[in-house]
Amino acid sequence: MPYDRLDQDVALMKAAGINVVRIAESTWSTLEPQEGVFDFTHVDRVLNAMHKAGISVIIGTPTYAVPTWLARKYPAVLATTPRGQNQYGPRQNMDITNPDFRRHAEAVIRALLGHVKNHPAIIGYQVDNETKAYNTAGPAVQALFVQHMQRKFPSLDALNKAYGLDYWSNRINSWADFPSTVGTINASLGSEFAAFQRQLVTDYLAWQAGLVREYKQPGQFITQNFDLGWRGYSFGIQPEVNHFAAAKALDVAGVDIYHPSQDQLTGAEIAFGGDLTRSMKNGQNYLVLETEAQGFPQWLPYPSQLRLQAFSHLASGANLVEYWHWSSIHNSAETYWKGVLSHDLQPNYVYEETKTIGRDFQRLSPQLVNLKKTNKVALLFSNEALTAEGWFSNGLDYNQVLRSFYDPLYKQNVGCDLVDPSSPDLNQYALLIVPMLYAAPASLLERLDQYVQQGGHLLVTYRSGFSDENVQVRHTTQPGLLSKACGVTYSEFTTPEKVGLTGEAYQAAPDANKVTTWMELLRPTTAQVLARYDHPVWGNYAAITENHYGKGLATYVGCHTSSDLVDKLVTDAVKKAGLWGADQQLSFPLITRAGLNQRGKAVHYYFNYAATPGSVRYPHAAGRELLAGTAVSQGQQLTLAPWGVLIVEEK
Amino acid sequence: MPYDRLDQDVALMKAAGINVVRIAESTWSTLEPQEGVFDFTHVDRVLNAMHKAGISVIIGTPTYAVPTWLARKYPAVLATTPRGQNQYGPRQNMDITNPDFRRHAEAVIRALLGHVKNHPAIIGYQVDNETKAYNTAGPAVQALFVQHMQRKFPSLDALNKAYGLDYWSNRINSWADFPSTVGTINASLGSEFAAFQRQLVTDYLAWQAGLVREYKQPGQFITQNFDLGWRGYSFGIQPEVNHFAAAKALDVAGVDIYHPSQDQLTGAEIAFGGDLTRSMKNGQNYLVLETEAQGFPQWLPYPSQLRLQAFSHLASGANLVEYWHWSSIHNSAETYWKGVLSHDLQPNYVYEETKTIGRDFQRLSPQLVNLKKTNKVALLFSNEALTAEGWFSNGLDYNQVLRSFYDPLYKQNVGCDLVDPSSPDLNQYALLIVPMLYAAPASLLERLDQYVQQGGHLLVTYRSGFSDENVQVRHTTQPGLLSKACGVTYSEFTTPEKVGLTGEAYQAAPDANKVTTWMELLRPTTAQVLARYDHPVWGNYAAITENHYGKGLATYVGCHTSSDLVDKLVTDAVKKAGLWGADQQLSFPLITRAGLNQRGKAVHYYFNYAATPGSVRYPHAAGRELLAGTAVSQGQQLTLAPWGVLIVEEK
Amino acid sequence: MPYDRLDQDVALMKAAGINVVRIAESTWSTLEPQEGVFDFTHVDRVLNAMHKAGISVIIGTPTYAVPTWLARKYPAVLATTPRGQNQYGPRQNMDITNPDFRRHAEAVIRALLGHVKNHPAIIGYQVDNETKAYNTAGPAVQALFVQHMQRKFPSLDALNKAYGLDYWSNRINSWADFPSTVGTINASLGSEFAAFQRQLVTDYLAWQAGLVREYKQPGQFITQNFDLGWRGYSFGIQPEVNHFAAAKALDVAGVDIYHPSQDQLTGAEIAFGGDLTRSMKNGQNYLVLETEAQGFPQWLPYPSQLRLQAFSHLASGANLVEYWHWSSIHNSAETYWKGVLSHDLQPNYVYEETKTIGRDFQRLSPQLVNLKKTNKVALLFSNEALTAEGWFSNGLDYNQVLRSFYDPLYKQNVGCDLVDPSSPDLNQYALLIVPMLYAAPASLLERLDQYVQQGGHLLVTYRSGFSDENVQVRHTTQPGLLSKACGVTYSEFTTPEKVGLTGEAYQAAPDANKVTTWMELLRPTTAQVLARYDHPVWGNYAAITENHYGKGLATYVGCHTSSDLVDKLVTDAVKKAGLWGADQQLSFPLITRAGLNQRGKAVHYYFNYAATPGSVRYPHAAGRELLAGTAVSQGQQLTLAPWGVLIVEEK
Repeated sequence: MPYDRLDQDVALMKAAGINVVRIAESTWSTLEPQEGVFDFTHVDRVLNAMHKAGISVIIGTPTYAVPTWLARKYPAVLATTPRGQNQYGPRQNMDITNPDFRRHAEAVIRALLGHVKNHPAIIGYQVDNETKAYNTAGPAVQALFVQHMQRKFPSLDALNKAYGLDYWSNRINSWADFPSTVGTINASLGSEFAAFQRQLVTDYLAWQAGLVREYKQPGQFITQNFDLGWRGYSFGIQPEVNHFAAAKALDVAGVDIYHPSQDQLTGAEIAFGGDLTRSMKNGQNYLVLETEAQGFPQWLPYPSQLRLQAFSHLASGANLVEYWHWSSIHNSAETYWKGVLSHDLQPNYVYEETKTIGRDFQRLSPQLVNLKKTNKVALLFSNEALTAEGWFSNGLDYNQVLRSFYDPLYKQNVGCDLVDPSSPDLNQYALLIVPMLYAAPASLLERLDQYVQQGGHLLVTYRSGFSDENVQVRHTTQPGLLSKACGVTYSEFTTPEKVGLTGEAYQAAPDANKVTTWMELLRPTTAQVLARYDHPVWGNYAAITENHYGKGLATYVGCHTSSDLVDKLVTDAVKKAGLWGADQQLSFPLITRAGLNQRGKAVHYYFNYAATPGSVRYPHAAGRELLAGTAVSQGQQLTLAPWGVLIVEEK
Repeated sequence: MPYDRLDQDVALMKAAGINVVRIAESTWSTLEPQEGVFDFTHVDRVLNAMHKAGISVIIGTPTYAVPTWLARKYPAVLATTPRGQNQYGPRQNMDITNPDFRRHAEAVIRALLGHVKNHPAIIGYQVDNETKAYNTAGPAVQALFVQHMQRKFPSLDALNKAYGLDYWSNRINSWADFPSTVGTINASLGSEFAAFQRQLVTDYLAWQAGLVREYKQPGQFITQNFDLGWRGYSFGIQPEVNHFAAAKALDVAGVDIYHPSQDQLTGAEIAFGGDLTRSMKNGQNYLVLETEAQGFPQWLPYPSQLRLQAFSHLASGANLVEYWHWSSIHNSAETYWKGVLSHDLQPNYVYEETKTIGRDFQRLSPQLVNLKKTNKVALLFSNEALTAEGWFSNGLDYNQVLRSFYDPLYKQNVGCDLVDPSSPDLNQYALLIVPMLYAAPASLLERLDQYVQQGGHLLVTYRSGFSDENVQVRHTTQPGLLSKACGVTYSEFTTPEKVGLTGEAYQAAPDANKVTTWMELLRPTTAQVLARYDHPVWGNYAAITENHYGKGLATYVGCHTSSDLVDKLVTDAVKKAGLWGADQQLSFPLITRAGLNQRGKAVHYYFNYAATPGSVRYPHAAGRELLAGTAVSQGQQLTLAPWGVLIVEEK
Repeated sequence: MPYDRLDQDVALMKAAGINVVRIAESTWSTLEPQEGVFDFTHVDRVLNAMHKAGISVIIGTPTYAVPTWLARKYPAVLATTPRGQNQYGPRQNMDITNPDFRRHAEAVIRALLGHVKNHPAIIGYQVDNETKAYNTAGPAVQALFVQHMQRKFPSLDALNKAYGLDYWSNRINSWADFPSTVGTINASLGSEFAAFQRQLVTDYLAWQAGLVREYKQPGQFITQNFDLGWRGYSFGIQPEVNHFAAAKALDVAGVDIYHPSQDQLTGAEIAFGGDLTRSMKNGQNYLVLETEAQGFPQWLPYPSQLRLQAFSHLASGANLVEYWHWSSIHNSAETYWKGVLSHDLQPNYVYEETKTIGRDFQRLSPQLVNLKKTNKVALLFSNEALTAEGWFSNGLDYNQVLRSFYDPLYKQNVGCDLVDPSSPDLNQYALLIVPMLYAAPASLLERLDQYVQQGGHLLVTYRSGFSDENVQVRHTTQPGLLSKACGVTYSEFTTPEKVGLTGEAYQAAPDANKVTTWMELLRPTTAQVLARYDHPVWGNYAAITENHYGKGLATYVGCHTSSDLVDKLVTDAVKKAGLWGADQQLSFPLITRAGLNQRGKAVHYYFNYAATPGSVRYPHAAGRELLAGTAVSQGQQLTLAPWGVLIVEEK
């Protein structure tokens, strides 16, 4: 802060109904100005001020950026990546496995937590922030990886065979010869190293959580601020972290979600990130530890949008919405990632809108927090598939394909969970969508087969089942162990040029009737053909098929198509799974999301993601619109303001 | 030269009226073939030949490229930049602070100057060439920078606060911990390092000039060949040199100007570079030490263009026009940067045109040299603003914005000076245009406030006043200390999407009515709104305002617009400043530029930057057209040939 | 292979008529698992299985990729390139001059060949694979280069002069000062280093061939698998190898040719690669050691295309067509470069088509192998010109220009050889096309002059003759020593903007009448102007000229034009050379290629490179269509199926 204004800030926060703040993250150089010399003045001061104002505090461990003295004394703290050793300056530049880093990280965490642990303002701890392995790949990490490989593979022969290392003379005949993975051209080895790096994150967070657990008081929680795969904004799953595994060490999952705004605001990222984070701990409510207030210049919200966004987070199951950050930063790097307050540190229209949010949150919390959601649709993602597919992408992007199947669910108001290969119970879902499961062990494919046999509807796409957990392509016909359930097989594939679909099932406008980037030459065995390729040569092959198998149904999609066609596919699958209901009468930009509140009452959110008013015929049991406090009867027509929100609690 | 042809070359030069050549630049490996072994044969030979022919010589110090033996013996002479250590080969690859480089540079300069100093052909010296710090940033330079910081900041606390180093744990708690700036993400620190690098250039040139001053004879001058910001051609101000500061050590400013040609020839770069170089030493005449003869293949001039260009240089105040270079090079790197002669070394149409230029220069010199210009408009630029803005560009380019305000002046024939924050006297100007003054000390903003109060017209744009000299964003409302003079304030800004302007002041064709890249949400305090945003949400905010303040007027431009709108803005500002006169009846491609010659007579140049003839009604007092030697009366219609020139000296 | 299936594979190969396989290439880590420990089990097993099945084997030396232990023990084996030292992982990452690499390569070659040399299945050896110098440029290689330069230049003065090293102070005054070439900006030096790298390849292959020659039995051959300049597929000449020089050490030339497929299949690469490889050893038949079966996904052949391709190779003079590779790879890097079999390792439509090829090859071999071709047209290429032009490309790409002159010949069914500056006998050709011979010694230009004098038709393009063998631009008017034969001269050139051609000789549709990228301002001396520039300023200059000189004719093309205009130029040249005959009645997509078979009979291939049927009027002496076995009379109308083939042997 350019001048001392803690009291003013606390007063403004208080007026806005802000009741939680997060502090101490990435302040190592302030907390420990020199090795072993600690100064918690600032922390104490803020804790006391917040406590006095009745604002709770989440303490972040400060390890996300290293102090200058640490980098100077222990240069190896800065990670060596495939591009060479990192320079001092950026955050997230350290080797999280480096013993000196770990030792000093432990010291500062213990000192900080020892100092603050009894402070009554504290409600929980955040371990580190947006943690990843930051592609650490130097010699020390390579040595750890060789140990990991020795544990994983009983013999080098097994490794050489599983990874096909004979190719281009990459065979390893002695553990001592194990080369650095940095230059590898072997996708099996490269993917395993990526998985190992993700494991480093899981281990590191568990280690930090273990430290914090020694200090935290009963009732306090441990969380982490996970971030999503980034594409200028939060977009897909995080390739560098196994969220479900890493979340095990935490009490509650946390996330940051940043998204387009103004005319590009759709709510899709809020829903996707929320569904993912809620799924991390099996439906448990989660914390939005960061989201944009003003953010980037292009994200400056239109009036009413901040409010719409805040309730959208709650509708996904969030129990907290925190803005990154309170006020805008006057120096350094994130100067144009603006906070609630602008650089003038005065109330503005964004701040005024947070006041209405704070007021309503305070008033309606009992009806809104701890929303429980039970979904009949799940989307299965896999970091192993993402990594492996990235080695052989052929122009396809895993997260883009994943989102192309998520977004139609969102836009059709079909509630959805995210599951990954570790998720135990798939049978709870009537519809399971599996995009591009490029690498998977036989056991997972067998589970999908069982899922269909036992009555589930599986919608599975191109490239799924293609290779095993070692990224070894199956030497059967494709889609490998999914062939039986899907009633289809193929061995050849190509890049479509001027290819569309024929067949009545998925008619699209001529512009949208497009197969692009990838197509498999499907031959049905027991399946019914839903669409064939429209092409003079490939027209004999099937493109999309459907197979009754056991008690269930499996739809196989053999090609990458326009989003219009994917919308039709998903709609069709939802209908066939018997899930097309009252909420599906609405569609984007009119969004509805629902759950049961802690009083066991159904709560229906209605959002209007548009600049023009919207109208909704309320189809559920009579209840009360909570914001206005008015009664709502079944079938009543409700009006949504531009970027407006309504919340109906059933009686 | 592929064979000995000095006599032929001198004869051809002589025939073309060439009376100055520059030699010895970047010939270190020839002059000092081994450490301490000198050979000035070639220099002597050329000096004697030129002297015999009555051609004067500028001696360039040869330090711009290092010899192989120096790089081999003292490898650290090759600068370490953020990309690693430079390789031998290119010019400008050395660390200008390296003690071994300095010692040997001094030795070769002293040896050369000691050898030639009494030669009568020499009229002056050029120290080095297009000197910069070449991004030298290795450990030795970092140590110098820390010393610089210790001088600049009394305490680390002050530094940490001024630069906001607490952010992301970049705080420096001990001078010994000071990290290399190479990886910094702190814009304050990064900008200061850039300023430090510019200071290295100023110091280095002053050091070389000091050496030369020990040898030079009375009447000989010291110059440097400054180059402009490059964009495939000379485009804007030079980010790596503070021209005004560096020029202090020189007797006369020099510059090279390269520009598009053929159908793209506009004269704008000749005017911009000339106005800048003339302003370096407060209106003093300057030398064009290099400009293209043929240059790049795409620059091969149409017949008459070389002549048009030559007189355009004079019209800006140049006292010399030298071509880079005499003949085309047969090996190495600049083979396709052709000279006056092509590779066949024979007269060609370009050479023939230089003969007409030489003839006319010789004939008309008394009326043309030492042109004095007194302008009422100035454009304020700032390297500090450029660097800081580059850290947070948000899609805006400083030089592009600067040129977008310069070019309308040029095209409307409004004479203009360039000023920078060190320029002492702003009040001599009726109109001061200040684009994107992103970083500036309070003192400068206060000077601008005073300027308006005292009757000036200030046209100032978006992003000005935003941060202080340490690139710390001001924590007041914006535009900071300019708010009062401009009568406007804002705290929010965004990226325009489908935004235009409303209001009658600046109507543009629908295509051109566009706000792009940047817009500030202006709230007038005392200002009158000239234009608002045409947008459903942002329409409440002002886009362009005008404020009567003291005796003056301040126009604030809150958004980046199409060049059509900038043209209108500048035209409007010139009119309001009372500067719309007779010369403004003409506009590009008909260009007029004027000044007083050494006899105190007004000289008016008329240039036709077009392939078709032009017609000009001469509006000034009667005089004589110098090229044809014919009388010209006021109001007479003059005809300009395609790419033609006329020069009228008033009686 | 994921499981043992050698017997199945051999049976499938046998059924397909496959009678040659290539093994052992890039298997070093399997053959020599640790230094000095050899294991030839796999080689023996395959040799025996193939022998039993009557399939011959080519043994590849395994040196193309290094084992992990070699890289670990001798890190300098991994080449240092201008980007730093290579990482372990990729193939072709070694320094082929490294003594440790050479010693171990020799050991594994000797051990392998000593072990297998008496095996009756072996018909020949392939030394290494797609060998290049891989841009090795570390200190050891630089030292070799300095030795090379000391041999080439008697004195440093001569070197400095020939290369123009004085420029930018690059002069070398002592051999000890010789800097690394990695950073050089001197095109002469850089081009010489590239030539030196090509020489390393020639030497290395000769060294390997020498080793193999110690072991090979009478009747066995030595070959290499050369690859072409790559542009997503085999496109032009290989910049990193002098094919004609390197082929001298071999008994028979080999090549791999990969090309677009499906609707993009044209046969042009098959013809170009074939004409080049046949020319490597002066018209001798060659081996296609690799070509695509399925290859990249986008190359999956349409039915009939594989067959069309196979016969197209034979029609160029190939005596072998091998697919890379038999079956698709399940791990590693080339997983999507598919073989004959897909990953399921089962017969598929591609395999079924190879069966028809195998059957017909077997049946018709006596009439098809050892095709001899006598062409009256040659295209002269030069690696020296390519490298030098690349330093000063001005937007032009050597291989693209080369192909722009080759392709019209192919499409007009004009048989063509490739020649390079080492080719002894140019006078055998009636038409010699010389595109962009940017760097050439005087002796070569004099040979071209003689060629015209003695009655040849020379078609030579822009930029030819421009610089000498040291990439020193000639200091005469251009095109240097070609001026006399071409009757034209120029000294200036520029980049065309909105330029077309005038004149009746080469009329093109307005869209195609375009001069782009490069134009020379030609002044005819004795030549007739065929086209001038259509441009208000450059219209006085000639663009294309023709000159009768001695008994011959020289056409000079002074500008880069649209491919339509190049087609017309080439057609015109073929006609003027008196070569327009019966085969020119057909044009692409109907392709005919011919030669004499080993029985001395003329064989005419007809190919239909289209998805629709084609019709051909057979113009030659009566014969027999070999595939169908039917008689064909002169003038008979023949029908070609889509992607079809006919082969007529004259009686």
